[in-house]
Amino acid sequence: MKLSQEMGDALVPVILEDLKLVEQEIFDHLGSDPPLLGEIARYLIKAGGKRVRPALVLLGFRAAGGEDVRRVIPIAAAIELIHTASLIHDDINDGSEMRRGQLTTNRRYGDTNALVAGEFLFVKAFRIGGMYDWEVVKIIADACTELAEGEVLQDGNRYNASLTPDEYLTTIRKKTASLIDACVTVGAWLSDADQPLIDALGSYARNLGMAFQITDDILDVKEASTTLGKPRGNDIREGQLSIVTITALEMLGSPERDELKAILGSRNTTTSADEINRAIELIQGTEALDASYRLARTYADRALEELMKLPETEFRDNLELLIEMIMNRFF
Amino acid sequence: MKLSQEMGDALVPVILEDLKLVEQEIFDHLGSDPPLLGEIARYLIKAGGKRVRPALVLLGFRAAGGEDVRRVIPIAAAIELIHTASLIHDDINDGSEMRRGQLTTNRRYGDTNALVAGEFLFVKAFRIGGMYDWEVVKIIADACTELAEGEVLQDGNRYNASLTPDEYLTTIRKKTASLIDACVTVGAWLSDADQPLIDALGSYARNLGMAFQITDDILDVKEASTTLGKPRGNDIREGQLSIVTITALEMLGSPERDELKAILGSRNTTTSADEINRAIELIQGTEALDASYRLARTYADRALEELMKLPETEFRDNLELLIEMIMNRFF
Repeated sequence: MKLSQEMGDALVPVILEDLKLVEQEIFDHLGSDPPLLGEIARYLIKAGGKRVRPALVLLGFRAAGGEDVRRVIPIAAAIELIHTASLIHDDINDGSEMRRGQLTTNRRYGDTNALVAGEFLFVKAFRIGGMYDWEVVKIIADACTELAEGEVLQDGNRYNASLTPDEYLTTIRKKTASLIDACVTVGAWLSDADQPLIDALGSYARNLGMAFQITDDILDVKEASTTLGKPRGNDIREGQLSIVTITALEMLGSPERDELKAILGSRNTTTSADEINRAIELIQGTEALDASYRLARTYADRALEELMKLPETEFRDNLELLIEMIMNRFF
Repeated sequence: MKLSQEMGDALVPVILEDLKLVEQEIFDHLGSDPPLLGEIARYLIKAGGKRVRPALVLLGFRAAGGEDVRRVIPIAAAIELIHTASLIHDDINDGSEMRRGQLTTNRRYGDTNALVAGEFLFVKAFRIGGMYDWEVVKIIADACTELAEGEVLQDGNRYNASLTPDEYLTTIRKKTASLIDACVTVGAWLSDADQPLIDALGSYARNLGMAFQITDDILDVKEASTTLGKPRGNDIREGQLSIVTITALEMLGSPERDELKAILGSRNTTTSADEINRAIELIQGTEALDASYRLARTYADRALEELMKLPETEFRDNLELLIEMIMNRFF
């Protein structure tokens, strides 16, 4: 199951109310002339998504003691616009066909329109950002830079069966953890909390993001297709190494090691179901899943440790619940 | 000849000195980890270009009485980053192979890397924008929005041989004139000049942009390939209607009108050289080129009129020279 689905059920009522304001704010910015551009830009946003990133902004703000939520509504909306833009552009790059149960923006409106709509969303987001202090813009822009860096790293390491654990961790920190960090940090920063509190929340978010991505990678090997919402072994098929596959390679002796390496490194776009299943079988024959879970647990524990530096509130409890939800995705 | 080449020779020494600072500023923002992303982002910038848009920011600033040029260097650099990003994304959309005498970014590094590098440049630009007043961010973001709108309009009207003059003018205002307007307006705004002066400079720039695009469209029909740097009739080949072709359609009687309409509306990607030449012959048999030139002249005159509201300086003279250069591109 996707984090977004789980998370929607776990949010406290105050945050759910705040999110309604964010939703309104998002659509307030998406008019265009000709109307078609706005229509394309809204297409993926209207298809759902539980607004995980805006929720993290709001939780960061309120957990750090922020009260007047109007201070963060626009920037929470802006971050969702950025996230949407990056999904639209990702789908162009991957030639993806479906997202959120409908055709991708590129399939529905063509690559050119999708690319331009992504730019439009970026621009609208930074237009909103411009009303905030430079510090806020920098936090978000630097996270976007890391996203782009992570994208280039990931693309460059596709089919690279010699990827090291450190390289993998750097990539997911940039691709996944940095924007989650930026969400919570911006929320906390706008609450006018003391710097140690802001830092603790940022560190919480970074560690949460790492735990999330690692559990996601575990699920790709472990879960039945129906639960995951995408085919099992998808990363293997696409040549994306993960901590699970990297660890398995380290643990296997030859000739199994060479066999797995060959499947992971195969640039053949039609890696067969048999090969995928064989790769999963090889991985499951090692302790790689357990080791990966322990690594995720380490990040989760660090996230919790940071959280305990905050005063106890329902919002801190909510952030704590997110950690446990991520760690319990398997059960 | 491209405006950028002509313009480089026409700038006063003060602006040429300022542009060196802009150049330094541009590259100061383009480091990345991994270095590859920055390399991709710098690839097109390093290939040249005369920095027309930064020069317009600087001229707007100085013509409006601005003195401490350090106020505008970063935003002038940011606008060049945005312009570069839009060129990189345009080349992906058009599947273009060459720009500025080298392979396009997408051909050199692949579509995915080019798309991400464009995002990276947008983000760096808006990161810089965040240090300015919101007004500055809004002016630039709104111009970027118009760029995106113009892109969607143009793409939607490809091969539309029923495009009206008004629709064409709206498209070029969005695609070309709005960013030129934003450059000069931001420069003027940052000089702390009075609003009427800022408005006059913005209106100058908008009219200059319109005159520039119309003369560009005339050249597409009129000029020999060698002078233009791209094949004559390129717009016709790509199904882009222009004021020249629209006017010719209005002026022709049948059956010539239907013949031209058929060539312009042909979605055949291999429109032959014979067809292109026949279309140009039909257009040149009308008064469309003269009428288009008169329209460009009207915009040029308006631009000049606005300029005369400014105090006389070498910078106003330089802006005036740009008008005449544009109108004399044919001779």
